[in-house]
Amino acid sequence: MHRVELEKPDGRKLYLYSREPIAKGIQATNPPHEPVIGHSHLRWHPLRGEWVAYASHRQNRTFLPPKEYSPLAVTKSADFPTELPAGKYDVAVFENLFPSMSLSATVAPELAVPTQPGIGSCEVVVFTQDPDTSLGALSLDQVYLVMQVWAERTREIGKQEKIQYVLPFENRGVEVGVTLHHPHGQIYSYPFIPPVVERMQEMQTQHFKKTGEVLLASLRKEEEKAGERMIVSGKHTSAFLPICARYPYETWIAPKRSVPYLYDLSNEELLDFARVLKTTLMKFDRLWNKPFPYLMALYQAPTDGKAHPESHVHLEFFPPYRTKERLKFLAGTELAAGMFVNDSLPEEKAKELRDVQVEDFS
Amino acid sequence: MHRVELEKPDGRKLYLYSREPIAKGIQATNPPHEPVIGHSHLRWHPLRGEWVAYASHRQNRTFLPPKEYSPLAVTKSADFPTELPAGKYDVAVFENLFPSMSLSATVAPELAVPTQPGIGSCEVVVFTQDPDTSLGALSLDQVYLVMQVWAERTREIGKQEKIQYVLPFENRGVEVGVTLHHPHGQIYSYPFIPPVVERMQEMQTQHFKKTGEVLLASLRKEEEKAGERMIVSGKHTSAFLPICARYPYETWIAPKRSVPYLYDLSNEELLDFARVLKTTLMKFDRLWNKPFPYLMALYQAPTDGKAHPESHVHLEFFPPYRTKERLKFLAGTELAAGMFVNDSLPEEKAKELRDVQVEDFS
Repeated sequence: MHRVELEKPDGRKLYLYSREPIAKGIQATNPPHEPVIGHSHLRWHPLRGEWVAYASHRQNRTFLPPKEYSPLAVTKSADFPTELPAGKYDVAVFENLFPSMSLSATVAPELAVPTQPGIGSCEVVVFTQDPDTSLGALSLDQVYLVMQVWAERTREIGKQEKIQYVLPFENRGVEVGVTLHHPHGQIYSYPFIPPVVERMQEMQTQHFKKTGEVLLASLRKEEEKAGERMIVSGKHTSAFLPICARYPYETWIAPKRSVPYLYDLSNEELLDFARVLKTTLMKFDRLWNKPFPYLMALYQAPTDGKAHPESHVHLEFFPPYRTKERLKFLAGTELAAGMFVNDSLPEEKAKELRDVQVEDFS
Repeated sequence: MHRVELEKPDGRKLYLYSREPIAKGIQATNPPHEPVIGHSHLRWHPLRGEWVAYASHRQNRTFLPPKEYSPLAVTKSADFPTELPAGKYDVAVFENLFPSMSLSATVAPELAVPTQPGIGSCEVVVFTQDPDTSLGALSLDQVYLVMQVWAERTREIGKQEKIQYVLPFENRGVEVGVTLHHPHGQIYSYPFIPPVVERMQEMQTQHFKKTGEVLLASLRKEEEKAGERMIVSGKHTSAFLPICARYPYETWIAPKRSVPYLYDLSNEELLDFARVLKTTLMKFDRLWNKPFPYLMALYQAPTDGKAHPESHVHLEFFPPYRTKERLKFLAGTELAAGMFVNDSLPEEKAKELRDVQVEDFS
């Protein structure tokens, strides 16, 4: 992997990645924009015991612009600069123009609840220069490169002393609120371990102390053994619908070896992970022969400077459809009580995905 | 409030409520349907530490039928029975034909994770016989009656030894996945304290032990004092956007007196609660002169037989819109990490709602 670090005219960072050496002389660009004024701040929610971010400068962010104005397209003319410069590279990462959190945030209002500056980071990961494709349709090499980028960014951002957690994710599809169609994901980082992850860490730590085993490794092994919820079984990686899936097509992808971070995997393991990821994504899109929307999250250990022998890097997909035509809405019981109702059995949905045939690309 | 308890031909319970005595001889009805086979079961999610319900018998439930086939309309002809019989009554409650949980569930599969039968209940609350109105457009008397019904059902369901929590809620609008347009809500009950409520209980208990005060009461008083997030200030009830709102138009309605359950309020207090609720709902619909979708949850104390001096009954609204045209989607940070990003300040959104004028109906 080759990498170049640049600075945009407005001061934001841009990182270019490529399988080939990147030519010198690429100039970072950015779309013309009004100054982005103000940082976010966090307020403590005393009833739920969690932080909420307020980012009112995000209200007027770009929303489904016509294709020719996509800020993620490569710049074609100096008169219409976008977020991506012209040049030969494969993947790009840049700081979001409208970040929910920022490492330079310093101010928080004094209120009746605890507050703090919205410290953190929000990066955009552009998966390819091609605006009309998707992560799963990229070549295996390119998916592997995207995963290398997730690994590298996690390591780099996680080095920041203020950062406790790094979350690479992708929202795919208008059904989950995507505002730009160019294939891309995001990386958020947090000044604390966010509540969902905190709960997972608790559960993993309990299990590790009690059994000496890594919870995710136990679950993955159990799934390989049972077989009925398996989707793809790779040499070093498993994709399956977990036995406790909350979404009908919820899918997890986990390496066989327990490591806390993506960057702990060997090249061979990461390539196999990329292969299983691409296979899974191809199955998603082939299932109904239409793009399959999802929220994808890459869970790793906190970057809090501690050892995490209980943690096991893995991907989770939360797809919003429950059948080809019907969305699963999160409503009363899911959002107000926190108990998911799944109208289907993981065993049935796993079979659907397992039975989808995709072409051999390896 | 007058009340009649009936049994449908298929064995489900039906409760009719009215301000006037209900004539004898009303026969409970139900739409013709295939037998609903099977109960739900719960599986333990070891990584999130929460129960997930599997209710695969719900897959084929009624979905946006044409108006003339609404199962919530009053039966007009014996040839086409609905869930509601003809007759003079104001509010009806019946057991959902496709329940996510059921008090008669007894079976759970043996799996690699802990399981239990899907014990609980799912009731439908029909707010009015009029299919073309909404909760906020009902007369004050009728809103008051609906609240009396929530109180009565909470008391009755909560008496069941297996039930630890009762949650009345309303999903309003196709934006939050509503499948039937007739004005109605639901009441779910759970065999455990669900995770969101469990967390709230922890926070309330901590606050109570530390300060001797009820957390919700402290927050409500703070909001009345600050004023800038107030929406409606009633004699016994406050409606406000909380200082820690996660949704742009999130609204809470809380009585001034701290009581754990709705049925603990006096008639005068409950009537004032109904007045503030109706005023708030009218403001919602007047804001953009279109029906304002939301998820509404009535939080009360657990029905676990313990005293709950830390608890304070209140309503929370989670509206999905962030502006007139734009939805707030729950995506990467909200669903995968559990940190909400709110693109607006509660102070601004509260002013919008406070400034909406509604007619005097009292």
